[in-house]
Amino acid sequence: TQAAIRIFRTFASFPTQLSLLSHSRLNLFTKTSSWRRFIRSTTTSTTTRMTTNSEVDDRSRKAQLVTNPQLRHQVEVVASRCFIYAQTASIHSSRVAGLFDYGPMGCKLKNNILQHWRNHFILEEDMFEVECTVLTPEIVLRTSGHVEKFEDTMIHDVETLKCYRADHLLEETIDKLLTNPKLSEAKRSNLKSLRAKADSLSIDELHENLQTLQAKFPETGNAISKPYPFNLMFSTQIGPTGKTRAFLRPETAQGIFVNFQKLLEENRGQLPFAAAQIGLAFRNEISPRSGLLRVREFQMAEIEHFCVDEKDEDYHPKFESVQNVQMCFRSQKVQEMNAETVEMTVGEALQQKMISKQTLAYYMARTQLFLTDIGIDPFRLRFRQHLKSEMAHYAKDCWDAEIFTSYGWIECVGLADRACYDLERHSEVSGTPLVVHAKYPEPKIVEQFKPIVNFGLVGKTFGKRSKALKEKLDSLNKQELEALIASIPEEGSVDLVTCDDRFSLVKGMITGIKLEQKKVHEYTFTPSVVEPSFGIGRILYALLEHSFWVRDESPAVAAAIAENSSEVTNASAANDIKPAKKSKKSKKAKKTANPKSDVVIRTVFKFSPLVAPTTCAIIALITKDPKMTDLTLKFRRKLTKLRISSSLDSSGAIGRRYARIDERGTSFSVTFDKRTLEDQTITIRERDTMEQVRIPIDEMPNILQRLSVLDLSWDDLKQTYPLIRN
Amino acid sequence: TQAAIRIFRTFASFPTQLSLLSHSRLNLFTKTSSWRRFIRSTTTSTTTRMTTNSEVDDRSRKAQLVTNPQLRHQVEVVASRCFIYAQTASIHSSRVAGLFDYGPMGCKLKNNILQHWRNHFILEEDMFEVECTVLTPEIVLRTSGHVEKFEDTMIHDVETLKCYRADHLLEETIDKLLTNPKLSEAKRSNLKSLRAKADSLSIDELHENLQTLQAKFPETGNAISKPYPFNLMFSTQIGPTGKTRAFLRPETAQGIFVNFQKLLEENRGQLPFAAAQIGLAFRNEISPRSGLLRVREFQMAEIEHFCVDEKDEDYHPKFESVQNVQMCFRSQKVQEMNAETVEMTVGEALQQKMISKQTLAYYMARTQLFLTDIGIDPFRLRFRQHLKSEMAHYAKDCWDAEIFTSYGWIECVGLADRACYDLERHSEVSGTPLVVHAKYPEPKIVEQFKPIVNFGLVGKTFGKRSKALKEKLDSLNKQELEALIASIPEEGSVDLVTCDDRFSLVKGMITGIKLEQKKVHEYTFTPSVVEPSFGIGRILYALLEHSFWVRDESPAVAAAIAENSSEVTNASAANDIKPAKKSKKSKKAKKTANPKSDVVIRTVFKFSPLVAPTTCAIIALITKDPKMTDLTLKFRRKLTKLRISSSLDSSGAIGRRYARIDERGTSFSVTFDKRTLEDQTITIRERDTMEQVRIPIDEMPNILQRLSVLDLSWDDLKQTYPLIRN
Repeated sequence: TQAAIRIFRTFASFPTQLSLLSHSRLNLFTKTSSWRRFIRSTTTSTTTRMTTNSEVDDRSRKAQLVTNPQLRHQVEVVASRCFIYAQTASIHSSRVAGLFDYGPMGCKLKNNILQHWRNHFILEEDMFEVECTVLTPEIVLRTSGHVEKFEDTMIHDVETLKCYRADHLLEETIDKLLTNPKLSEAKRSNLKSLRAKADSLSIDELHENLQTLQAKFPETGNAISKPYPFNLMFSTQIGPTGKTRAFLRPETAQGIFVNFQKLLEENRGQLPFAAAQIGLAFRNEISPRSGLLRVREFQMAEIEHFCVDEKDEDYHPKFESVQNVQMCFRSQKVQEMNAETVEMTVGEALQQKMISKQTLAYYMARTQLFLTDIGIDPFRLRFRQHLKSEMAHYAKDCWDAEIFTSYGWIECVGLADRACYDLERHSEVSGTPLVVHAKYPEPKIVEQFKPIVNFGLVGKTFGKRSKALKEKLDSLNKQELEALIASIPEEGSVDLVTCDDRFSLVKGMITGIKLEQKKVHEYTFTPSVVEPSFGIGRILYALLEHSFWVRDESPAVAAAIAENSSEVTNASAANDIKPAKKSKKSKKAKKTANPKSDVVIRTVFKFSPLVAPTTCAIIALITKDPKMTDLTLKFRRKLTKLRISSSLDSSGAIGRRYARIDERGTSFSVTFDKRTLEDQTITIRERDTMEQVRIPIDEMPNILQRLSVLDLSWDDLKQTYPLIRN
Repeated sequence: TQAAIRIFRTFASFPTQLSLLSHSRLNLFTKTSSWRRFIRSTTTSTTTRMTTNSEVDDRSRKAQLVTNPQLRHQVEVVASRCFIYAQTASIHSSRVAGLFDYGPMGCKLKNNILQHWRNHFILEEDMFEVECTVLTPEIVLRTSGHVEKFEDTMIHDVETLKCYRADHLLEETIDKLLTNPKLSEAKRSNLKSLRAKADSLSIDELHENLQTLQAKFPETGNAISKPYPFNLMFSTQIGPTGKTRAFLRPETAQGIFVNFQKLLEENRGQLPFAAAQIGLAFRNEISPRSGLLRVREFQMAEIEHFCVDEKDEDYHPKFESVQNVQMCFRSQKVQEMNAETVEMTVGEALQQKMISKQTLAYYMARTQLFLTDIGIDPFRLRFRQHLKSEMAHYAKDCWDAEIFTSYGWIECVGLADRACYDLERHSEVSGTPLVVHAKYPEPKIVEQFKPIVNFGLVGKTFGKRSKALKEKLDSLNKQELEALIASIPEEGSVDLVTCDDRFSLVKGMITGIKLEQKKVHEYTFTPSVVEPSFGIGRILYALLEHSFWVRDESPAVAAAIAENSSEVTNASAANDIKPAKKSKKSKKAKKTANPKSDVVIRTVFKFSPLVAPTTCAIIALITKDPKMTDLTLKFRRKLTKLRISSSLDSSGAIGRRYARIDERGTSFSVTFDKRTLEDQTITIRERDTMEQVRIPIDEMPNILQRLSVLDLSWDDLKQTYPLIRN
């Protein structure tokens, strides 16, 4: 259970989430003390099931996961209203699909996710960060194999010439067939298993299956072409001649590989080391879909960890620190047997040889910790091993961190063992050795056959040229030496030819062969590479779904609101504990409150303060007093100096302001009220519990800073400053 | 002088730089108390002059600026050795020009510059940050005018078809002609003035001048083609059909313009507001040159500030806070008169109407503060107004912040008044109104001619249709109404046709026209835009040159080193104040010290702690004691938790380690020595002064954090903890 607790450190370190969850899921978890039993029990208490395509539905049922069918729509509505993200150039009718802009809230959220990524990986693991160009000369991606192999298979409508992804068409054709109730059980099962591996079929297999199932082009119903490959890279021309081709990189990794020698030097020739890169990558998707999940331009955060050595590859110095992290695994075997996802510690998984390398296992655990840190629900997270057929051309072993969303399980992080593939290829093509020089722990004895030379005779015959002859002789192996000696005639000579010279050897010059031993201290090798690769946009979208919450729909919180219903339209009253003033304020607040705000659905993003777009909203209840304006502005400047993001909300009824603040996932709100002018105290409200405490204004900036980096929890704060009760 | 002091806040807040400079330039400044006199006096005390192309040389002479001719080469050598940046894919022979990767040190430096940019602009000015896609649909850049107008003029060799920029060829042709000593003074002067405006000539003017001067293609000497335009944008195809064209954005601004309506909504319909974007932009340079200064892929940080209103445009609420900032201006007038750069406060420049808008002036001052904050030398910084002929197609007024480097004055920040150009264009093409609704301070009276209608007769005749008739009549202007009334015959009727109906009007229905007055409360307008646009790569390169310093070559410091020469190879001795132990250590250090380190040139980057790639180097003098290893690792973890970047340097002689640390511009070094194990204290060394103090180990992390954000200066620290003296 210690390990299980570790997984939940997001909740543990941010107890307000804990208290929210205690009404529903986490309570069950605590009671049963077992994750598996927990997952089972949640499914019995829910009434809705996600409806999505059959394959995903299959998998999700196996994982016993459920989701609110309204969730995706609700998140999209709020994402649009708060401008979290939007389609690029949406005002223009000739915009294109698969491109998204991040608005202010999305941008802040993304920056905070990346900031934590930098801290969690680059700073804590002491990695080199680099930034290579997006425009990549053709030679780089030809060497890496992307020009030849980075492709999807497509078909087109033979009449309209419109294009479609072949595997998508196969999936959709199968989905249509499955709706036929008369289908035999055997056929249904066959179709389902074909659908599950649609994206790993070869071109020929796709062709065969599309023909067998008589697939037609969607929309038009026309006949389709034979499937053919389409390279997913965007290409462009560099310079005005039109002769220099370049690509927009499809991954950031190659930039690190071509700079390997410089990075190794910066690490003073030592292994292991890791280089990280955060940046854009591009894929020319044939038919982009699923919002932020399948786009043509996306941000990646990649790590290339260069392992110590083939012989020592199982070693990562910090593995012990993560070995008890509890994780969900879907290994190749589990998938092939169609068995249930397995839950165990990463240490156990490594012991069972489910994972190929300790370094890979280490990063899988670190990935799980990162994702749960920022707020990904650990119950909707699993690690799935790639099937042999779906592995990228460079990969030796590969696991995806998959997160469950309304689109089903989506790949958000790829963790690949790329072996030595890339470094060897770039070495070979560029002629620059990308290798590491290492010393043997103890000098190694190497045996070599050498000729026994009569140096007297050789020296007398060839003079200064003897040295070149000796070098040539030393370069021959046993067989060559034996042949040479045998070829020397009793009378006369045989010619030994080198690049620059010709030696006529006679009998007696080489008398035999001996075995020599030599001490070797150094060797060179190409390090193997473990690559964790994060899709930031996908993680951000999953985080939106996992953080989304409708306050009124949660029965426990709804009850709390019912008890304390004045809060919604009249939260300001709670700030004041003097009864006389309270009634006066209530009146005022009611006057300005929008009567409709009681029935509005109140959506909340329960972001951790670690990633919340805004840490603190500042509310002034008295707006026309210049003293108050002065106080709030001064307070805000202090927060800015401490790099705490804040928003100033000065219009509308207090209930509406809170609704706006909650909808944007702002962690805390501080309120300046009449009492502030009297005793220099302000209140702070926690978003999820709506609890408030009153604190001297001077202490607040520091408290907010500590809350925002999880150095202080809301529960701790409540211990020091008593809760304001209604 | 208060203003002048403000400019120097980098130095003031980081006194160690002050003390370094006091030996040379800043001393002169203090004595004369005048910036201009200061600049003059420095030129007399130097012996070397920058040699570069004549035009830049001209300008730099006018500005009385000098630079070490070795500087560029030296910076490039260190940049390569420390992997600050390197050409993309440099290991491959078919790499392309104009692309650069940032290594670990360059990446950290750039991240810190951007972090300060975010704090200085986005956080302090409360801007919206957005992140739009690099891939931009054609419609966006066609609307903005880039598809038609964003181009350079090029020529090609008529035989080899190789390309070259026409203005570069003209410049180089003139440079060659100017080397002729027999050239008349008049001709020389003409050529020089032609050269100065080469990049603002039209295609026809370029053609004429290239013909007149009989320009030939460089290298081959062949005849050249007529000049023709080349669009600088990289284009690509989206999707598999090959029909959807897109470009890599040449600026980040358009992404903000097309999202204007969403951002305005996020600001609740209010002006002014500003949106900022940090991201990549691309220009397909014809002949890239000058290292990091003219590249094909570069990072920009742009702000679009939407001004209040045409009538109030001169107003920026925070202008007062910067009005006394002292700056160097080269206005259009100054350039046309070939006069000297003018120095005054930004307030004075605005009063003289040198700058078009208060908002533009505000951002110019904020830009100067940002650049000097991060370490750009204020003496090598000026603001140059664009000539009418070189202004971009969208600009109404434009100033460049130019920084003096070994390449001459280079444009690093563009500050443009783009007026309403972009919003109006996107509005027009997309059909989406990109406007602001504003209320008049007092309702406005608008006069309108209305028909006098006999409603009894109309109602009786048309019944419910009367309403539509009334609307139609109200939409007619005075002339149309008069014509209509005149057309109604005495007997019979005339037909008035609307979209959905036809009304037969007879005499008596409309009896005349009256003038009506109406109160109007609201109006709509398109806000004008001020755009500060930062080229981060150029600023970074200028910062490298301005921060570069060879310790041994500065006479004052050289003298200091000479006095205290043991420091170089044996700095460790200084850590220990007990004589007995000192000698013992010196011996040990000498044994491992490389005897060559005394003669090596010691280069230093004197970065401010605000941007230094690494804040603190950790040095352990005793490497084999596990207690010591434990202490240093624990200390490092504490720094990591506080987000302080550190490096652990555990090999080589102490002098060599310091050399490595200085070369990388690491601000401070802390050393764990034998005494640390006894009394839990460590020493901290300041890079530029090489001064050291000893501090309890527990206090150090906090002190380092305060030093790194300039909340504490080295001078302050010396007050609390006495200097260690040798």
